[in-house]
Amino acid sequence: MSAPQTFIDRELPRFQGELFELLRIPSVSARSEHDSDTRQAAEWLARRLRSIGFEVEIVETPRHPVVLAEWRGAGSGAPTVLIYGHYDVQPPEPLDLWTTPPFEPTMRDGRIFARGAVDDKGQLYMHVAALDAYLAEGGKLPINVVLIAEGEEEIGSPNLVPFVERFRDRLACDVVLISDTGMFAPGLPTIVNALRGLAYFEVQVEGPGGDLHSGTYGGAVVNPAMALARILASLHDENRRIALPGFYDDVHEWSPADRAAIKQLPFDEREFQHQVGVPALDGEAGFSTLERLWIRPTCEVNGLLSGYTGQGAKTVLPARAMAKVSFRLVPDQDPVRVARLFREHVASVTPAGVKVTIEELHGGRPWRASTEGRHYQAAVRALERTFGRPPVFTGEGGSIPIVGDFERILGAPVLLVGFALPGCNMHAPNEWFALESFEMGTRTIANLFDELAG
Amino acid sequence: MSAPQTFIDRELPRFQGELFELLRIPSVSARSEHDSDTRQAAEWLARRLRSIGFEVEIVETPRHPVVLAEWRGAGSGAPTVLIYGHYDVQPPEPLDLWTTPPFEPTMRDGRIFARGAVDDKGQLYMHVAALDAYLAEGGKLPINVVLIAEGEEEIGSPNLVPFVERFRDRLACDVVLISDTGMFAPGLPTIVNALRGLAYFEVQVEGPGGDLHSGTYGGAVVNPAMALARILASLHDENRRIALPGFYDDVHEWSPADRAAIKQLPFDEREFQHQVGVPALDGEAGFSTLERLWIRPTCEVNGLLSGYTGQGAKTVLPARAMAKVSFRLVPDQDPVRVARLFREHVASVTPAGVKVTIEELHGGRPWRASTEGRHYQAAVRALERTFGRPPVFTGEGGSIPIVGDFERILGAPVLLVGFALPGCNMHAPNEWFALESFEMGTRTIANLFDELAG
Repeated sequence: MSAPQTFIDRELPRFQGELFELLRIPSVSARSEHDSDTRQAAEWLARRLRSIGFEVEIVETPRHPVVLAEWRGAGSGAPTVLIYGHYDVQPPEPLDLWTTPPFEPTMRDGRIFARGAVDDKGQLYMHVAALDAYLAEGGKLPINVVLIAEGEEEIGSPNLVPFVERFRDRLACDVVLISDTGMFAPGLPTIVNALRGLAYFEVQVEGPGGDLHSGTYGGAVVNPAMALARILASLHDENRRIALPGFYDDVHEWSPADRAAIKQLPFDEREFQHQVGVPALDGEAGFSTLERLWIRPTCEVNGLLSGYTGQGAKTVLPARAMAKVSFRLVPDQDPVRVARLFREHVASVTPAGVKVTIEELHGGRPWRASTEGRHYQAAVRALERTFGRPPVFTGEGGSIPIVGDFERILGAPVLLVGFALPGCNMHAPNEWFALESFEMGTRTIANLFDELAG
Repeated sequence: MSAPQTFIDRELPRFQGELFELLRIPSVSARSEHDSDTRQAAEWLARRLRSIGFEVEIVETPRHPVVLAEWRGAGSGAPTVLIYGHYDVQPPEPLDLWTTPPFEPTMRDGRIFARGAVDDKGQLYMHVAALDAYLAEGGKLPINVVLIAEGEEEIGSPNLVPFVERFRDRLACDVVLISDTGMFAPGLPTIVNALRGLAYFEVQVEGPGGDLHSGTYGGAVVNPAMALARILASLHDENRRIALPGFYDDVHEWSPADRAAIKQLPFDEREFQHQVGVPALDGEAGFSTLERLWIRPTCEVNGLLSGYTGQGAKTVLPARAMAKVSFRLVPDQDPVRVARLFREHVASVTPAGVKVTIEELHGGRPWRASTEGRHYQAAVRALERTFGRPPVFTGEGGSIPIVGDFERILGAPVLLVGFALPGCNMHAPNEWFALESFEMGTRTIANLFDELAG
């Protein structure tokens, strides 16, 4: 075993304890009442990175800061790797569905349960641990490393592109390395080669000036909640295709060979159905479950609120109704164009008697990896060294908008090597990260530093 | 002026002060945390009625008590009037839309602002004041009076029918008098001769076992909020008729003469539209606004809740979605049959991949008054004496399920003589009752006691 791997072996309990410290900080970026917690998470990370030998700066943005850490001891002849992660987390609600509190990390059945355990604090911290394994006891890395950790990923990274543009020179690198994705199955190392984009909206339907008695006024006044339901129902056709005119114009149709490769992955529809706990799976006609998740766009309602939602009955005709609606996009769809199509469609189906406003909450482009080149092959070898088998290539239904931006601004390819396991409750109650995944991930990253140097 | 009218003149400020005391008690029947407040309102009323000479009993029910008060000093030769009202109120939410707090009654522009000001504490208290005007200073009423005030009207009066059946003999009467309705316009005395019924449901759509990441799972799992939207959208057709098969089978079609009488009422559609604050009025094709409100059934969404409803974006595929859905019914629709039709329709449009459950929260039959007979004429005369003009007859979009039950169980006609003014925000923030209406209502009721004795 190499020195870094031996070090990881020995120091794993310490790494775990440190990760728990980070997980205890409720850095919920979407909530202003957590702003000081979010900053505390950035400062915690900065201290850790300094302690292992990095030069660290906390760079302010209009909202949450970016941690910018550099180690350039490998010299100008060695390649430079840019590591990206995020220290902010999703809101933990609904709290009553958590078995243990979201910000009190707890081990159960070999899993770390906490908000952020896998998305992304646990995966970000694997990198810190791997760096520590090289730099401890006077050692050095075979590559130069720049690490950036942002605090706004879960709110759409509004200030990251300006940051990357501003620090373009200091972020110059040969490859960008990100662990914010998952493995296709336990024991199956995975490189993600496609991400869906996102276009997320809040739709407000306003009717009467105030809530009305639904008996006294019902029937003569358009009900905003009913109008909203009709608008939402109009977003799909009977084949569960998205009904916005022109929506599929830019959808890249995958080749039969690409679709066959997806078909060969070890995927059990029944097991998937059981895992998500639904009575049946369904989606766009003509596509398999994995295709629906990776290579097809979708439209989801993420939230609904109107009128009386408490216990019992209240006979109210609500003044307004709200929906959060998001589209997942695939190459080559553009969130700006989708926003326009969405606005046009909603306007065309909005009934008289209500006013609809649409706010764009965030958007990101879809992405496909450039799988050519030596960095991609280095990642394949590092995973094979750690797991004893070559990785599979998968899509990922979620979005990491910054991936495409890194490629565009820095001109470097992005490697998505992540270790979340299926069913890890990302963005949901009882989020978890297997301790074994944390260890294997740390080992893989240490190996990858080695491979990238070669 | 008669002695009771002179008394009302003099004691009005005291009556108003007493009403404010009652309005300060937050007797929200739907909320168990207000149970002791609700009881306190019953006890307050009981004390007041005892102090003016009534024999009063507080009758327990499985939830909130009924105040049963009797004065039988007019002797067995005189008619007996049963007065019904309710001392419970609607929940006050959303609190931030109230100009002054809902349980701190405040006078502004000649109006009493408070939750319950008009529905029904203020209108119930007019009766107490009118009784006081006869009984004060050793006086007596020309009729026997039984007054019942319940604490469960706003939750569908689940225990009132058993109460009326149990006390059928003590409640025996010649006429039932209720002030829980409104005047068609300021200065225009009104008798309500039709009420819509109600069938109120909570619909729960359940999908995955827990909230999911909308990127990771979106497209392959049926979204419960989207499924709910499609179910709700299916409840109306393009003409805004209710799309449940068989729903209109029992709807009484009004005669051309009845519809002409409605047309003759002084009603300004623009003024109504302005008052409710909507960009346009709309409803079932082929009917006027008043017809849509009084003689046609309707289906409303009263509440919606699903997924993430806080600030910003959360990419969640919600595990469940809830809607409160209610139908207003017209003669001769039956809430039991409507519940069956609703269940059948929802089952027929529920997609695979979700489970739907429907809970019946409450129901009540629609009602039309028997306008024949001397009691009705007595009410006409009492209103004319007070207001100087004969009343109009109107429908009322809201429901008072107990009205039909009184007629059925006690075999006595029901008189609906109420004084709420249009725009009084019943069931909404900033509910109000004009002080002048409170006074004129009290005077009318005092006159009506006189007329009923004759």
